[in-house]
Amino acid sequence: MYSKNFTLKIFRPTLLLDESKCRKNIKAMAQKAAEHSLSFRPHFKTHQSARIGGWFRAEGVDKITVSSVTMAEYFAKSGWNDILIAFPLNHPEIQQINKLAGKINLSVTIEALETIDYLNKKLHNKTGVYIKIDAGYHRTGIGWNHLDEIEKIIVSINKTANLNFVGFLVHSGHTYQAKNLHEIQEIHDDSLRKLSALQSRFTDEDFRPLVSIGDTPSCSTVNNFEGVDEIRPGNFVFYDIMQFQLGSCKQEDIAVALACPVVAKHPNRNEFIIYGGAIHLSKEFINDFTGRINYGLIVNLESNRWGNPVNGAFVKSLSQEHGVIQTTREHLKALKIGDIIGILPVHSCLTSSQMKYYFTFDGKHINKMH
Amino acid sequence: MYSKNFTLKIFRPTLLLDESKCRKNIKAMAQKAAEHSLSFRPHFKTHQSARIGGWFRAEGVDKITVSSVTMAEYFAKSGWNDILIAFPLNHPEIQQINKLAGKINLSVTIEALETIDYLNKKLHNKTGVYIKIDAGYHRTGIGWNHLDEIEKIIVSINKTANLNFVGFLVHSGHTYQAKNLHEIQEIHDDSLRKLSALQSRFTDEDFRPLVSIGDTPSCSTVNNFEGVDEIRPGNFVFYDIMQFQLGSCKQEDIAVALACPVVAKHPNRNEFIIYGGAIHLSKEFINDFTGRINYGLIVNLESNRWGNPVNGAFVKSLSQEHGVIQTTREHLKALKIGDIIGILPVHSCLTSSQMKYYFTFDGKHINKMH
Repeated sequence: MYSKNFTLKIFRPTLLLDESKCRKNIKAMAQKAAEHSLSFRPHFKTHQSARIGGWFRAEGVDKITVSSVTMAEYFAKSGWNDILIAFPLNHPEIQQINKLAGKINLSVTIEALETIDYLNKKLHNKTGVYIKIDAGYHRTGIGWNHLDEIEKIIVSINKTANLNFVGFLVHSGHTYQAKNLHEIQEIHDDSLRKLSALQSRFTDEDFRPLVSIGDTPSCSTVNNFEGVDEIRPGNFVFYDIMQFQLGSCKQEDIAVALACPVVAKHPNRNEFIIYGGAIHLSKEFINDFTGRINYGLIVNLESNRWGNPVNGAFVKSLSQEHGVIQTTREHLKALKIGDIIGILPVHSCLTSSQMKYYFTFDGKHINKMH
Repeated sequence: MYSKNFTLKIFRPTLLLDESKCRKNIKAMAQKAAEHSLSFRPHFKTHQSARIGGWFRAEGVDKITVSSVTMAEYFAKSGWNDILIAFPLNHPEIQQINKLAGKINLSVTIEALETIDYLNKKLHNKTGVYIKIDAGYHRTGIGWNHLDEIEKIIVSINKTANLNFVGFLVHSGHTYQAKNLHEIQEIHDDSLRKLSALQSRFTDEDFRPLVSIGDTPSCSTVNNFEGVDEIRPGNFVFYDIMQFQLGSCKQEDIAVALACPVVAKHPNRNEFIIYGGAIHLSKEFINDFTGRINYGLIVNLESNRWGNPVNGAFVKSLSQEHGVIQTTREHLKALKIGDIIGILPVHSCLTSSQMKYYFTFDGKHINKMH
């Protein structure tokens, strides 16, 4: 066996979790939030696991973010009492929302008057509301400078008995397109300027709306949080090679790797095939430093860790269950069919969402919702 | 509601299945196989459902293809007795393979002497073997003209007590890159020439190895099956817009659509946001006829069907749970937040693999493995 000190039994694609790296990532972000006096409301859509949630609790976290009503229900069941659903309110799930809002301190995200009108008619329990602001990513949210529209929504929220206006929520997802740390900083600073202006505009003696930001690249790399009240990063719990390429983390901070059996070797083109495809990794790719399309980096597995990425090896393409790995002649020569190799994923949120549980080096199955 | 005659209750992204289209697709392929005197061993990785498997049985199908040991176990449990695992044999699952081979008529796929040696030591029950041949796709398989290597493998199979050589298996996945029907035909004819040569080379008075081909574009569009014994298409059960763009099917043959709630509207850029993202559709895209990156087409839902794709509307980007739809001003104007729209997927195999069940227009939940 190539990974000769690796003793875990792996039969098929399995998501390995390095618990100590993961706990370290959680502790570091919790400390950063504390140092900057920020409320820390981590996004749990990356791990989707009650057990990993417990590792956050151990760092003093008492409020969380999720991306669906289903996920809010799952974490409410495991004892979380303050949950924000950071996704535009999904009208058809109003019954589930009402139920949850009757049990826990629930907050929802809205960006349209239409939704407030709907909640005015249908909502039976007290619920917090964040207004989604678009500060430049242009996926969802109201343009930060559409002040009239924002004002109408706030007025409408304040007229609705069960709604409690909390503040402004932004997700600067365009930091994922940044080419370097300086660009992340610029996008972040630009968002803060816009959000601060908005906050000032709607602050009076009775109320100051909160500003909540979300993306892992900013939260990991910047040190200016002026005007920010709350951070909601998610991906940092595992990180991945996209974050590594952006500069959000070191390679050794990446806390998950997909363990995959080698099923075929093609020495004539320096490729091998793994059992591990789009249904495990997801089809997310990066254009890596050398300009190639890259679906993941290859690591050798050892008894209680994985090594650094194998030089010259990467996931070249994915189909449903197959992964094609391009590598060097030497690496390929050392591999046998049946060996288990590891893949550092491009986007750990999507990879972990595909998988049903995590497997730690001490052989624990860590369950998640699925 | 925009889709005003649509009465099914949809709360969150849900995979709609048009049962009559699906049964029609199955019947048409079964008939085509019969007309050409081909053994029909459909690939079940597309639907992964015991119930849909029953619709194949109703058309006389008695042997199937799957892509994993887990899938073979699932379908063996639902009564399938002749199953080919068309994926390079995964050594770590030898125990499960032995168990299955003791119960049903199991065939496996191999492409390396290493694997035959392994099976020689580890296999306890009779198992059929297909040799995977690479006729030009260059993902897996032994080059069709590597006659010495193929001969060594056949000799080795014949020396192994529990292995029974069945024939040559090819998957001409490069038909998916074809630009028109003529190119599909050319790739197909080229594969057949290569496979026929191979078949002749290894045929003697005692034995004639079978030739098994697999891709949906070829099986759907060509009429020359000279030298072919068996076809294993899978995707045709649902088809999708990739197949439609290739010319493998008509738009109205597509049998699945992802029903998604509209959660936000952005008239200033003619976009709306759905609850429905990469974790539902998968991140597979096409470069469509107009050169755009396209993750799916939009259809309006009616009481017992969906309509033709909405002109000018398509899925522009996907994140974990969000889909961004680019559309026309008129279409957007007619939509309300909370409406349910349908998406014809780019690659139905991956989309259905993401989802836990199918939902039919008469309100049936059709379970699948997950």
